[in-house]
Amino acid sequence: MSDHSDVPVAAHEPPYYAAVFTSVRKEEDGGYGETAERMEELVKGIPGYLGMDHARTPGGLAITVGYFRDEDAIKEWSAHAEHRAAQRRGRAEWYERYTLHIARVERSHGFERVGD
Amino acid sequence: MSDHSDVPVAAHEPPYYAAVFTSVRKEEDGGYGETAERMEELVKGIPGYLGMDHARTPGGLAITVGYFRDEDAIKEWSAHAEHRAAQRRGRAEWYERYTLHIARVERSHGFERVGD
Repeated sequence: MSDHSDVPVAAHEPPYYAAVFTSVRKEEDGGYGETAERMEELVKGIPGYLGMDHARTPGGLAITVGYFRDEDAIKEWSAHAEHRAAQRRGRAEWYERYTLHIARVERSHGFERVGD
Repeated sequence: MSDHSDVPVAAHEPPYYAAVFTSVRKEEDGGYGETAERMEELVKGIPGYLGMDHARTPGGLAITVGYFRDEDAIKEWSAHAEHRAAQRRGRAEWYERYTLHIARVERSHGFERVGD
């Protein structure tokens, strides 16, 4: 949710879960940044949380992908009271539109450049 | 892959597949844009292709999510000769690192603001 990481989350041993959240925010999104940072702190406390990737095209689409070890972890995060309050505020104030896809990762791999 | 769409792909009826590709490119990525546009055209010809979301934080992480009706569709795209050539060129020339997660979407929903 914050934009500080430029290293993608690594492939984990499948199966694991990915929550793919694609969104477009309103031009006025006051309070969004603080809430996003708070959510990023909170999710780290969920047992089974594996990491998060985030990218946003300026003025356009944002994609956040949260990775979780199992369905229990993703359900715990979905049901977290402070997260639910943030979701409600998002619908009321920040988002023009969004889609959430909850998916079970069946295979994955990574690449990292070496030597130049 | 190109950055033209600012409307997230809608939730489809599960199950369907998502290919989540997170990447960081080198500062010099000559030829990347043309190839990305070509891939975006090609993938539209894959039976069962449902759409693509893309976002990139300037100078940072890029996330592309391709959605496919079933595993056959995603396998056909993975094995497409011109796509495979582009993947090889990506590893040779463009990417610092990437992760690919292939996932089966089990549930999804969307939100769209109305009335203001």
